[in-house]
Amino acid sequence: MSESVTDRATDRSPGRATDRTDFFHRHKDLLERAVAAAGDRDHWSPHPESPSPKVYGPEAAPAGEATFRAHLGSAFKLPGHPQSGTVAVGERSPYGLPLDVDYPQVTPEEAVAAAKAAASAWRAATPDVRAGVAAEILSRLNAASFEIAHAVHHTTGQPFVMAFQAGGPHAQDRGLEAVAYAWAEQKKLPAVTRWTKPQRKGEPLVMEKTFTPVGRGVNLLIACNTFPTWNGYPGLFAGLVTGNPVIVKPHAGAVLPLAITVRIAREVLAEAGFDPDVVLLAAETADQRTAAELALHPDVRVVDFTGSKEFGNWLEEHARQAVVYTEKAGLNTVVLDSTDDYKGLLRNLAFALSLYSGQMCTTPQNLLVPRDGIRTDQGTRTAAEFAEDLAAALDKLLGDPERAAGTLGALVNDGVRARLSEAAGLGQAVHPSQTVDHPEYDGATLSTPHVALLDAAADAGTYTREWFGPVSFVIATDSTEHSLRLFTETVRAHGALTATMHATGEDVLEAARAAALEAGVHLSENLTGAVFPNQTAAFSDFHGSAANPAASATLTDSAFITGRFDVLQSRRHVAPETATATEES
Amino acid sequence: MSESVTDRATDRSPGRATDRTDFFHRHKDLLERAVAAAGDRDHWSPHPESPSPKVYGPEAAPAGEATFRAHLGSAFKLPGHPQSGTVAVGERSPYGLPLDVDYPQVTPEEAVAAAKAAASAWRAATPDVRAGVAAEILSRLNAASFEIAHAVHHTTGQPFVMAFQAGGPHAQDRGLEAVAYAWAEQKKLPAVTRWTKPQRKGEPLVMEKTFTPVGRGVNLLIACNTFPTWNGYPGLFAGLVTGNPVIVKPHAGAVLPLAITVRIAREVLAEAGFDPDVVLLAAETADQRTAAELALHPDVRVVDFTGSKEFGNWLEEHARQAVVYTEKAGLNTVVLDSTDDYKGLLRNLAFALSLYSGQMCTTPQNLLVPRDGIRTDQGTRTAAEFAEDLAAALDKLLGDPERAAGTLGALVNDGVRARLSEAAGLGQAVHPSQTVDHPEYDGATLSTPHVALLDAAADAGTYTREWFGPVSFVIATDSTEHSLRLFTETVRAHGALTATMHATGEDVLEAARAAALEAGVHLSENLTGAVFPNQTAAFSDFHGSAANPAASATLTDSAFITGRFDVLQSRRHVAPETATATEES
Repeated sequence: MSESVTDRATDRSPGRATDRTDFFHRHKDLLERAVAAAGDRDHWSPHPESPSPKVYGPEAAPAGEATFRAHLGSAFKLPGHPQSGTVAVGERSPYGLPLDVDYPQVTPEEAVAAAKAAASAWRAATPDVRAGVAAEILSRLNAASFEIAHAVHHTTGQPFVMAFQAGGPHAQDRGLEAVAYAWAEQKKLPAVTRWTKPQRKGEPLVMEKTFTPVGRGVNLLIACNTFPTWNGYPGLFAGLVTGNPVIVKPHAGAVLPLAITVRIAREVLAEAGFDPDVVLLAAETADQRTAAELALHPDVRVVDFTGSKEFGNWLEEHARQAVVYTEKAGLNTVVLDSTDDYKGLLRNLAFALSLYSGQMCTTPQNLLVPRDGIRTDQGTRTAAEFAEDLAAALDKLLGDPERAAGTLGALVNDGVRARLSEAAGLGQAVHPSQTVDHPEYDGATLSTPHVALLDAAADAGTYTREWFGPVSFVIATDSTEHSLRLFTETVRAHGALTATMHATGEDVLEAARAAALEAGVHLSENLTGAVFPNQTAAFSDFHGSAANPAASATLTDSAFITGRFDVLQSRRHVAPETATATEES
Repeated sequence: MSESVTDRATDRSPGRATDRTDFFHRHKDLLERAVAAAGDRDHWSPHPESPSPKVYGPEAAPAGEATFRAHLGSAFKLPGHPQSGTVAVGERSPYGLPLDVDYPQVTPEEAVAAAKAAASAWRAATPDVRAGVAAEILSRLNAASFEIAHAVHHTTGQPFVMAFQAGGPHAQDRGLEAVAYAWAEQKKLPAVTRWTKPQRKGEPLVMEKTFTPVGRGVNLLIACNTFPTWNGYPGLFAGLVTGNPVIVKPHAGAVLPLAITVRIAREVLAEAGFDPDVVLLAAETADQRTAAELALHPDVRVVDFTGSKEFGNWLEEHARQAVVYTEKAGLNTVVLDSTDDYKGLLRNLAFALSLYSGQMCTTPQNLLVPRDGIRTDQGTRTAAEFAEDLAAALDKLLGDPERAAGTLGALVNDGVRARLSEAAGLGQAVHPSQTVDHPEYDGATLSTPHVALLDAAADAGTYTREWFGPVSFVIATDSTEHSLRLFTETVRAHGALTATMHATGEDVLEAARAAALEAGVHLSENLTGAVFPNQTAAFSDFHGSAANPAASATLTDSAFITGRFDVLQSRRHVAPETATATEES
């Protein structure tokens, strides 16, 4: 990815080239910076993560909230969107607020037909033009961060600051990262080149060859309830920039954040002279099964999915006509051997388990601790003692209701509540989940993490299942070696999005790195400060890996891009002396 | 792909770094040149395609032939290779020569176990080390080009010069192209980087992050009868360089070229300090079904396949645990509208149909011609007249037995012979296939192309099947527009490896380009000289495309590489002032 990546830019779209390249020229520097950042993997973000008025201006927060509130009880407008009536999806805020937003209703056939009708002009545009449009969409999404933050807060139950950050700027970062990869990947080859092969006698053979990236077809995005934008934007923008129309199928419980996103995308597409149906919303109720129907449509050639292992595996098994990128679930694991900052370790882990009530696909579930203890700067702590210390750290973190609310958020749906009830009977509860009153919303259920002490040998049936929500286990093992073996075996078999090692010795850390490579999972080492196992930074940290069963994709790497388009070639002879520019004559 | 791609080279393999990087340092310039060539797509090859003594030296040809002849009637030696007895695969030259070579017998379980045992050190080596080993293998394969040429000639039936070029230097070019892509793709990210995030108060957060490419698992290569090396090397080298052990499963009729390849690869691996079982040979008889068994083995994570549509589709359907790259078959199409060099067009097409008796996955089968004729510099020629002219051009090309033998080669197997017999009854035969005596070998069956005149409407059932071998159709259509529509429809439905357009008007050529993009196939325009529709040049032309059903891969693009490895990350805090170099402390 070189700085000169735009040198090969050629816009061959007929007629309105000037209009269509406007957004590209506006964002060219940003795109080049993003490509460089994805290569360097140092910290970088053009989207400030602080919701402070000093950053977004004093009007942004109240204006965004007002815009959000205006959606409530209304029919969401998407001008020009194919529509046969409206659908009341029944979104209800985990904080008790009824949303009552109706969305355009569209059948799978209608959605695919509209996407296909919009596809050809979009496909004919250059990667530059598409990347420019995508960057403009992201810029306007950033301006709408407060509106989207409230929509995320009231559909996912995320605490507000998290909803702002993860649902706004961090999701926009992930989207821009996908744009950068998709743009650079399509520009690796020249649009037109000259091939000159010397001959033993006479003139050389000379051909002019063109290389055209062509999108695979309709890209379906099936989004999740908990991180509709953060997990959705990479697929949305990767699909768009590689020349595919995208049908956005939100989770019935979290439509609004993506409806706002689709509205903004369509506005930008129309301004750039494209059919806005390049991006479509396919809202459905929880009872409808349009996701499955859409995913099997012969013209749907790419599927992005975030959600349950069951449906993810079903998609991988059945959507054979498509390239399927899934982010499912697994057994996020922490291996504890030793630490020189036991307080920091406990603080970090307590927060990691509590953040958004453990409803992150990255929340640690299985904490593997040698039965006889870990060495710490506070002396050796057995597995049982460590479990008690963790329980105390959780109580300390969540003792203040305001702070608890700002950390825990609310339980997103009945599935999480059911799992939490079921977990109450498992192993030896060292920190039983407790209900906390929300200082502002009467309707919200706040629950502290449930932590149980398990035995590695006796309780394998329990900890080799995923318990999505505020449920984690301290698992007593025979030794660190045993922990690392268990880590590799369980993650290879059941997958994981995150893994963490706490150890002071370089030899143990090296063994952990080897175990993580064997398990196929990204590793965090000795997190005791302000970086948590469940957080990944766009442009620097990878999220997920096809190397283990929890996902079939990494956000964001080249493999996440290359399945979405093909480069097609044409070749013709030209006279040796003819210049490339005569192509147009 | 920048010139500085090696700046990030770091060999972290323990102990014998000096030995293992030797080959990399020897071939570093070549690798960088190859990466640049794959980006520029101008003509480039480090492997001379001429078998002339002036190029390869006066001794190369006789020495290569002697080495080949020494294999006949012997047991092929692969020192250290896992082996439970030997297998007589029954290779028989299409020119009549019995080969009688026995190969090591190995069960699928034994092969996978040996590959896995060899994998970890290979995976732990750096991309530089692996690319260096691969480049050395290719360099030695180039030195063995005459030995391999005879092995290809006497297993595939290719005429000798073609066997030398396609089986030797051109296959080596394709292999090196795969090495270049695989090497560059793994080096897009830094091995170690520093992440520094400013904090509102106090010191910045600083982390050191490592990125390690990790191969997916065992890579199975299922090779074909007609182009064992040309179609096999891309997968072999892409698999190797991305850190996977490769099990080579040759077609029972064409084992020797790949056995020689495996022997050379194992020699280089051993010299570089690796377990030679990183590359294994799994020879089988035509009756055994080890390919299917190997392809479903849970530890086989990548499959490369060239061959029939039926088995290719079966692999895509059933080898769900693996990433499957197939190159199958389709309806290679020529659309004729007009030409200003009718003689050149006929000469070019006659050669394209005759080369290796049409037994190339790229040989044109369906020639779409407006019933009322094409405009040429020799006047308008109706579809029927064009068919007669083509027949005459074939007779002229193949009239001399020596030249016919050097062009046609021999029919590779009974499947081709059966199809040729079946084709005799189809449509109106304008050039019935004729048998030609080989000037040197009594046992060879040489057959000229069978060309029949068909009707686009009446004979769709015939021309929408693939007739692999010397069978082509002149199909009378209503118009060029009709031809282009048929072209798009049939290729979208049944696939194609190649497409060719003959037209003098830029508007018609533009329409053909649009049709080819819609069909998802690479296009050649107005080939009337020394470049033929069925030939593609490594580093410049793409071969195949996942954009149509004839293949699920392109030789060679990034998608052919990215499914073979994942990048795994680890991260740890470091003090802001610590230098990266302290990692080793």
